[in-house]
Amino acid sequence: MALDAADLGPATSLTCRECGESYDLGPRYACEQCFGPLEIAYDFTGVTRASIEAGPRNIWRYRGLLPVPTNVQDTPNTEPGFTRLVRADHLAESLGMQRLWVKDDSGNPTHSFKDRVVAVALAAARELGFKVLACPSTGNLANAVAAAAARAGIRSAVFVPSNLEQQKIVTTAVYGGTFVTVRGNYDDVNRLASEIAGEQDDWAFVNVNVRPYYAEGSKTLGYEIAEQLGWRLPDQIVVPVASGSQLTKIDKAFGELIKLGLVEDKPYRVFGAQATGCSPVAAAFKAGHEVVRPVKPDTIAKSLAIGNPADGPYVLDVVRRTGGAVEDVTDAEVVEGIRLLAGTEGIFGETAGGVTVACLRKLVSSGALDPDAETVIINSGDGLKTLDAVAPVARPSAEIAPSLEDFRASGLA
Amino acid sequence: MALDAADLGPATSLTCRECGESYDLGPRYACEQCFGPLEIAYDFTGVTRASIEAGPRNIWRYRGLLPVPTNVQDTPNTEPGFTRLVRADHLAESLGMQRLWVKDDSGNPTHSFKDRVVAVALAAARELGFKVLACPSTGNLANAVAAAAARAGIRSAVFVPSNLEQQKIVTTAVYGGTFVTVRGNYDDVNRLASEIAGEQDDWAFVNVNVRPYYAEGSKTLGYEIAEQLGWRLPDQIVVPVASGSQLTKIDKAFGELIKLGLVEDKPYRVFGAQATGCSPVAAAFKAGHEVVRPVKPDTIAKSLAIGNPADGPYVLDVVRRTGGAVEDVTDAEVVEGIRLLAGTEGIFGETAGGVTVACLRKLVSSGALDPDAETVIINSGDGLKTLDAVAPVARPSAEIAPSLEDFRASGLA
Ligand SMILES: Cc1ncc(COP(=O)(O)O)c(C=O)c1O
Ligand SMILES: Cc1ncc(COP(=O)(O)O)c(C=O)c1O
Ligand SMILES: [Zn+2]
Ligand SMILES: [Zn+2]
Repeated sequence: MALDAADLGPATSLTCRECGESYDLGPRYACEQCFGPLEIAYDFTGVTRASIEAGPRNIWRYRGLLPVPTNVQDTPNTEPGFTRLVRADHLAESLGMQRLWVKDDSGNPTHSFKDRVVAVALAAARELGFKVLACPSTGNLANAVAAAAARAGIRSAVFVPSNLEQQKIVTTAVYGGTFVTVRGNYDDVNRLASEIAGEQDDWAFVNVNVRPYYAEGSKTLGYEIAEQLGWRLPDQIVVPVASGSQLTKIDKAFGELIKLGLVEDKPYRVFGAQATGCSPVAAAFKAGHEVVRPVKPDTIAKSLAIGNPADGPYVLDVVRRTGGAVEDVTDAEVVEGIRLLAGTEGIFGETAGGVTVACLRKLVSSGALDPDAETVIINSGDGLKTLDAVAPVARPSAEIAPSLEDFRASGLA
Repeated sequence: MALDAADLGPATSLTCRECGESYDLGPRYACEQCFGPLEIAYDFTGVTRASIEAGPRNIWRYRGLLPVPTNVQDTPNTEPGFTRLVRADHLAESLGMQRLWVKDDSGNPTHSFKDRVVAVALAAARELGFKVLACPSTGNLANAVAAAAARAGIRSAVFVPSNLEQQKIVTTAVYGGTFVTVRGNYDDVNRLASEIAGEQDDWAFVNVNVRPYYAEGSKTLGYEIAEQLGWRLPDQIVVPVASGSQLTKIDKAFGELIKLGLVEDKPYRVFGAQATGCSPVAAAFKAGHEVVRPVKPDTIAKSLAIGNPADGPYVLDVVRRTGGAVEDVTDAEVVEGIRLLAGTEGIFGETAGGVTVACLRKLVSSGALDPDAETVIINSGDGLKTLDAVAPVARPSAEIAPSLEDFRASGLA
């Protein structure tokens, strides 16, 4: 691949998170010395509030802070981001809080925050010479990859466990790429993806061999929150945790904004949210451990069901450094969280959103989170994709015959 | 109700579309002389491109052109609108067109254009003193009403046929309002809603007793398209037709922008799109009739399945005046339309979007629509709500065992 010609914007190199070893930019993702994960290093220049505000109303307004080419917005892409930051006064009131915001990422093109990371992975992958956009997935990522590749006019190759729900099959297959169901669980699919990546030189598996680029896309959530608050950081933020990448990248984004002088330096606390049925990071946090012990997931929050989270230890670092916490909630609490958000703010989040709202409630109750400090929570996906979770409880008030008498008798008038 | 205190912005009166009779603003919807539908009349002042551009990134930037209070954006609402206008070069190429855009209204809060009309109805209804937001519906409208009421902190009352699919029940019930299933078809539900509206003084049925206000919300689609094109009208636009309201209001919006000098005066052609299984307006257009003969709907495009469209004759007026047409397509073509839009642009529309894309294709083939002129099509809803339509054809490419050998043998490498 012709890396000399590659334009990856402000990115300068890849650095190992564990041993600090540095590598040239390219299609690498693990350290040759210690197998640690690689992360993008940058040289930021000329990024100002004004230069950002003059950009498009999507993640590319932050292209000067991402490993993507300077002209990224001119190539067809799904243009994710700049989703609504919703002032949530009714939800706040019901929790006894003062000032609460919901960052509603269900407004993205395929209705989850995965459109952000995929868009960045696609832009970098093209620049690195890859020809196919691929992933192993159990849902949201599959949708995002298939849609982004269709829009870009390139081939996609998506691998999912064959026992996936019919509706998740349809929402990926409709985009018409290569779509393979694999007889095995997600771990089997993931392993197969790594093996294929080793053979197929021009396939970019977004969350495997181009993961360092992909992961940077989550920084845009942090940038947007700060900009939408009027170039200000919140006091507290609650973030759902699967691999832990999103949480660590939001923290990275806040740090960069401070360093660049785009927001005032101030303390903020980062909280992680997990479902009890897959809560290895919360367990490690509560036990005071520095390592995360893998678990076998069993929860309705399937998009968060990563039992062996790659960024778990880094989540612990961020949360402990900022004075936050990692909380977890039962599946019943997740369902209540979904209904609470829908009923108070008219926002129907997926199970990951339910996890986050329910953890917010629990963190307020326990006193870990300050109800009087300004707080942002992330709704990272859409309830339309996880209908089964609420179907048993989201029921009609009554069934009547089509007559006024019946309506009056129902007591609903 | 204290109408003296009501602030409905630039709205001045209600006028009968049939006989021209004028009425004071209030909760009326039919002419006392001739039973014709009432429409809002305005006195627009001080609306400029600059005043609009200085407004919020949602439909309230056009509040100076809508029957809503001046401070509408300060009351909690779902903030719909300003959805993406997507340049669709791949779709254009596949149809032999030059310059095509998709107005993607699936990006609205509950993922259909109904959020626009409901937001305007809610704002007007509050001002008129109503206390409950209600509707008869078969899907999208129910979602939008329940979500908007939850966000506003008021009661909703939604009525649907009891044979509605389980998934549509869940997506409305989750918001927690009053939600009644009625043993009957949509016509029965609609009639019951009118009867209840007659009894319950403070219930605003958005599409019944506050319909004149509600319908104006669709104008924002027209305003946004013009603004997003750089304050310019397209040459051609293709709009899905159920009651026909959306199409006539987009035309009204274009006309207002010309009259106000916000865009250059130029000819544009408006095309309507229906499913053959419910195509009373297309049938009337093709037969050269001025009246629309009701039909019994039988199509997978359920959101467009209104057999007796209230604004059908006005659609014929607009289409004939502008040199457009009304086309219709089979259910198989609807499915192909959904797949074509998804596969070329990464946009998964609902059946109404499939109808529109398929009609576009047919209109190009027949020569009724000029492939070289700038064209906009509306994707008014989200594919996640009509999965059943594509489930039979949106299938995986292959199922394999989790091994490299199996993958190689699949021929997909
Ligand atoms: C909807 C949703 N929210 C949150 C997450 C968590 O992301 P991360 O793996 O970055 O922790 C995921 C991951 O798949 C997701 O799909
Ligand atoms: C998704 C969708 N598109 C288009 C329409 C058509 O709207 P109208 O009744 O204004 O013609 C509807 C109406 O219900 C709809 O739900
Ligand atoms: Zn290392
Ligand atoms: Zn009249």
